[in-house]
Amino acid sequence: MPKRDFVLPPEHIYPIDEWRLAEVRVSPEHLARAETIFALSNGFLGVRGMFEEGRPSGAPASYINGFHETWPIVHAEDAYGLAQTGQTIVNVPDATVLKLYVDDEPLYLPSARLKEYRRVLDMRAGTLTRELVWSTPAGKHVRVRSCRFVSLESRHLLAMTFEVEMLDRAAPVVVSSEVINRQDARPSNEANNQRSADPRLGRRVAGRVLECQVSREAGDALLLGYRTTHSGMTLGLGVHHIVEATDDHRVEAAISGDHSKVVVEAQCEPGRALHITKLAAYQASRAVPSEELVERCMRTLRRSVHDGVESLLARQQEHLARFWDRADVQVRFSGGSGRMQQAIRWNLFQLCQASWRAEGTGIPAKGLTGPAYEGHYFWDTEVYVLPFLSYTQPRIARNLLRFRHSMLGAARTRAHELALSGAAFPWRTINGEEASAYYAAGTAQYHINADIAYAIRRYVDVRGDRGFLVEVGAEILVETARLWADLGFHCPEGHFHIHGVTGPDEYTTVVNDNVYTNLMARLNLNYAVASVRWLQQERPADYIALVREVGLDEDEVEQWERAAAVMYIAHDDKRGINPQDDNFLEKEVWDLARTPPEDFPLLLHYHPLVIYRYQVVKQADVVLAMYLLGNEFNIDEKRRNFEYYEPLTTGDSSLSACVQSIVAAEIGDEEAAMSHFRSAVAMDLADVAGNVSDGVHIATSGG
Amino acid sequence: MPKRDFVLPPEHIYPIDEWRLAEVRVSPEHLARAETIFALSNGFLGVRGMFEEGRPSGAPASYINGFHETWPIVHAEDAYGLAQTGQTIVNVPDATVLKLYVDDEPLYLPSARLKEYRRVLDMRAGTLTRELVWSTPAGKHVRVRSCRFVSLESRHLLAMTFEVEMLDRAAPVVVSSEVINRQDARPSNEANNQRSADPRLGRRVAGRVLECQVSREAGDALLLGYRTTHSGMTLGLGVHHIVEATDDHRVEAAISGDHSKVVVEAQCEPGRALHITKLAAYQASRAVPSEELVERCMRTLRRSVHDGVESLLARQQEHLARFWDRADVQVRFSGGSGRMQQAIRWNLFQLCQASWRAEGTGIPAKGLTGPAYEGHYFWDTEVYVLPFLSYTQPRIARNLLRFRHSMLGAARTRAHELALSGAAFPWRTINGEEASAYYAAGTAQYHINADIAYAIRRYVDVRGDRGFLVEVGAEILVETARLWADLGFHCPEGHFHIHGVTGPDEYTTVVNDNVYTNLMARLNLNYAVASVRWLQQERPADYIALVREVGLDEDEVEQWERAAAVMYIAHDDKRGINPQDDNFLEKEVWDLARTPPEDFPLLLHYHPLVIYRYQVVKQADVVLAMYLLGNEFNIDEKRRNFEYYEPLTTGDSSLSACVQSIVAAEIGDEEAAMSHFRSAVAMDLADVAGNVSDGVHIATSGG
Repeated sequence: MPKRDFVLPPEHIYPIDEWRLAEVRVSPEHLARAETIFALSNGFLGVRGMFEEGRPSGAPASYINGFHETWPIVHAEDAYGLAQTGQTIVNVPDATVLKLYVDDEPLYLPSARLKEYRRVLDMRAGTLTRELVWSTPAGKHVRVRSCRFVSLESRHLLAMTFEVEMLDRAAPVVVSSEVINRQDARPSNEANNQRSADPRLGRRVAGRVLECQVSREAGDALLLGYRTTHSGMTLGLGVHHIVEATDDHRVEAAISGDHSKVVVEAQCEPGRALHITKLAAYQASRAVPSEELVERCMRTLRRSVHDGVESLLARQQEHLARFWDRADVQVRFSGGSGRMQQAIRWNLFQLCQASWRAEGTGIPAKGLTGPAYEGHYFWDTEVYVLPFLSYTQPRIARNLLRFRHSMLGAARTRAHELALSGAAFPWRTINGEEASAYYAAGTAQYHINADIAYAIRRYVDVRGDRGFLVEVGAEILVETARLWADLGFHCPEGHFHIHGVTGPDEYTTVVNDNVYTNLMARLNLNYAVASVRWLQQERPADYIALVREVGLDEDEVEQWERAAAVMYIAHDDKRGINPQDDNFLEKEVWDLARTPPEDFPLLLHYHPLVIYRYQVVKQADVVLAMYLLGNEFNIDEKRRNFEYYEPLTTGDSSLSACVQSIVAAEIGDEEAAMSHFRSAVAMDLADVAGNVSDGVHIATSGG
Repeated sequence: MPKRDFVLPPEHIYPIDEWRLAEVRVSPEHLARAETIFALSNGFLGVRGMFEEGRPSGAPASYINGFHETWPIVHAEDAYGLAQTGQTIVNVPDATVLKLYVDDEPLYLPSARLKEYRRVLDMRAGTLTRELVWSTPAGKHVRVRSCRFVSLESRHLLAMTFEVEMLDRAAPVVVSSEVINRQDARPSNEANNQRSADPRLGRRVAGRVLECQVSREAGDALLLGYRTTHSGMTLGLGVHHIVEATDDHRVEAAISGDHSKVVVEAQCEPGRALHITKLAAYQASRAVPSEELVERCMRTLRRSVHDGVESLLARQQEHLARFWDRADVQVRFSGGSGRMQQAIRWNLFQLCQASWRAEGTGIPAKGLTGPAYEGHYFWDTEVYVLPFLSYTQPRIARNLLRFRHSMLGAARTRAHELALSGAAFPWRTINGEEASAYYAAGTAQYHINADIAYAIRRYVDVRGDRGFLVEVGAEILVETARLWADLGFHCPEGHFHIHGVTGPDEYTTVVNDNVYTNLMARLNLNYAVASVRWLQQERPADYIALVREVGLDEDEVEQWERAAAVMYIAHDDKRGINPQDDNFLEKEVWDLARTPPEDFPLLLHYHPLVIYRYQVVKQADVVLAMYLLGNEFNIDEKRRNFEYYEPLTTGDSSLSACVQSIVAAEIGDEEAAMSHFRSAVAMDLADVAGNVSDGVHIATSGG
């Protein structure tokens, strides 16, 4: 393959700064991309980096983790057991809008004459600030300063400040602070009718999503309550304004479910600023009436007003100081490392944003930064993010694993649908049910079961927290081990085989004895055995409780042990490598060198049947296995495998580069290591994949 | 598997008669089934066996071969190259309805007091007749005689006679002869909302299908013209009535696009019959305006009135005499063979009905007897029906192969979408485009290419008609051979492998080196080579024309020859059998003996991933290959293969039993042969598969 070049962003748009990312001019052609790069989130609430004016905008959105609408998946050709319920994260009403009018002329950035412009994401302060000087059509000069942050301390809160100052001449100034329900404002039937062959994009929900149940003013606050039409989840939203103006001003409010506003009018004299603080609180639930959520929002707002924005900003900085204290990675390269350092910090900051307050939920593939993958939880969290969190933020790691446990019931049901024992965790989900409509690259990725087991082991080992096994860990391990024992079988020669699975590489599906899957399943089985035995010996009471809870018997455990002991791991003695699956090496080799660059990613340009019958990989899962299970391969095996798979790897998956880089470093291939490292670090900032407008690749950041 | 029992229909409903199938009582619980069994068709026009009264009805429908509506296939998760255009045969307006009222009381069979009742399908006359005596609520006795046939002579014509005679007392009699547009009368959104996991059932088209363009009376005729909303096909329908009554009567007509009627009122005296002849003519087209089609219908009607029903009936019998003369199969079993003979004749009759006047179209999987498979053409015709026709009705066989040739352009386009050379015939289609929404059991069945080549060879060999090769056969052979040459590859050891295909057995998909596929591809390649060489030597001018037409060069032909010569045919030396594919024998064996009977067919009770990872087959395609390519196996191979696959075969496919039977007979397993033979012959009459209400299994009849 002609390796695609990438460049880190040009300095005249994003100057080098190790702790800040700044945009120094307005680039209307990259709106959606900038919205992703400047997105703010705390893991519960996320707002993309829309301009305060609300327009122009690329893909404006705000999200609450786990707040989703459901819809029936209609299969073009149905079959028994295919996923039935689609789940899509809801674009919740947008509270970031603060439209400015001076002399009744709107500030509209693409056409405005700007004397100064700077938008800064500060990764230590946790804020997005903007400062500009606008020369109005009447020739007056106005300084506009704004700042927003999604609170790491008070996770329901989005806080904004907006300041307008006439620099030379007086003028009437109007600020229209709005709340816009964008999900329903852009009817999604339309979107669905535009046929797109890119399965990575989310499917839009058709029809009205949010039914308004509450809309009223209470003092200075706008209060809104909603319920989703199908999933029946509830949402509360409260918005409060504090207006500070030395000059005369008046405030008027108008409320409705899809478009509410508080309009501030003031006669502004030069040198005397109009200052508006806008606080928005969001609450979501599966069960609580929206009216009650609205009341909770009011309490959050009252407390925030009482504390004051300065205090919240100080706490924001404290949280980030704690984060950086444990998580910072510093690099030194010859020839200038500032840009690289900035990119690494930005990636780490995304991890913080995606996870810090993700309590009782998972981490969506794109965090809360964009619509792609529909806000679903995949295996990414367990394999790419949890190891990082286990070292740096054990509280969050534990919460995420607990959240998986909360989905165990649904996973048991799914296993039953698949005629299997134990639990089958869904490939993609929000509510615990399988939402992958394409089983070959979805349900067949049973490896997610083992990925979860891997994350548990990693967490327990790193933290020494065996209490977690007692609490919920062992139960997950038992149920996942059961699935492997039932899915696989002993061949007449005694080996344990696992057929009909898809590994992480989605360019080959439904194969026999995928090496990644079998290795990880072995880990899962062995760790389940070890954990059960440990309980039995060290915590007999807890062991008895577990046995009762899951109906465990000793034969089963022995079965797992046996299966793991004779697990078949494909190996090609001639080449000294592990074939990705039992038939991989028999396939024709895809000629990447002769594939035109515009044919990548392959999945958008070739029928699955074409891709599947060649040796070509989206991400090298043997290489991933060597990274995760480093001690099960010696350095020569690693080198041979890496050298075999590297030329077959398109890197069409965003999960590929980081792992290729680590393993390349391990085997001493510095050039490949650095190239992949740059590619992984720059994935989003340089828009390597060309789709950053749909959201941040959180797993890559983790990698 | 507990082999499911089947019984031929009970004699009190269907008495034994070698040439007739009679229903001697009304069975409201089996309406839809009887509608299939009593369906009439000539290959162009088909009407199911609805009662004249129009109600009660099971699944009333009339079809014109190839007359279809299109709709966009929406994939739950789209991918490059998936089928985009759904095609569904249209239920055309039903002209069979003749409602009877005596003393203003309707005849409604389920509740009517019937003194006599007999409905007879006569397989030599080609008619469906009914005779009954009704004791009305007022105690009067009425004899009602009706007869209908779909003309084998005049393929656009459906003819009906209806006779009412008061037996004891006079009464006012009303006959309402109607034309009902049923496709739109039962809105199909509703049907689509009822989630069904049975992929064999057709998907209903949503919204209005037939737009009425013509609706007028002309003399005694109702004239109707329609256009389908999306596919833009046109339909003309003319209905004419001849009323003969000695008593006073009047006739009134009312016309509309969805429901037209001609009402005949008469005061009937005992012994003086009211006799109505109803003639309906259908025309369909892709291009001709419906107005013109209506005019053609009028001409058909005029001619039919002129000829008279008696003459048409005589011609009908002549056609059938010609059919039976060549096609009849007589059996003799000890212990009474009448029922078996009747069932065999009924199956042969279905073949006649499905093919006799199928000119310029294919043969749908269910003929024109039901909605299942949406009126699509599959491989069935080439493998199961064409051999029979090549021997008995060469004109029809040749027409069907010509029809395939007319789809060659679309098949070339499809090959290009699949990044392949040559032509890829669609797995299922009406208009030539791939309509299978599930590629693993659709597009991956590339073997349809070779099945067509097989049918060509069979036809040419049986008829000695090499002119057919010159006409279109060679062109098809070249383009299909090209696909195989490109799809497969030579491995380092030199063998030619074909990966990523699905054989006829849909319980294993997307495998490497499916034996059926490779054997048939070899035949295709070899026959293409032989045909091209023959042309080159014997018909040089035609050869040059072909070379120009398809841009053939000699290298290609050598390539095909080489590929065929080293075609890899999987063989297990230890067992002495052919594994269905390269991995088949490594899989776990499905325990059919312990599978509960209610779990069949497996596809409705197990996730595809479950079925695919076991040794279990829907139809044994190795056995099919042994039947089609009998000379490439010796008797021991046949026996070993048969004995290996027979116990793994669920027979969930209706195509299975006939082939199993033939091969069992060949290897001398008389018991298995007879059991499968009975099962195949009785497939529809005894409703072995439980789905005969959706239509006749034409391929089984052919088998």
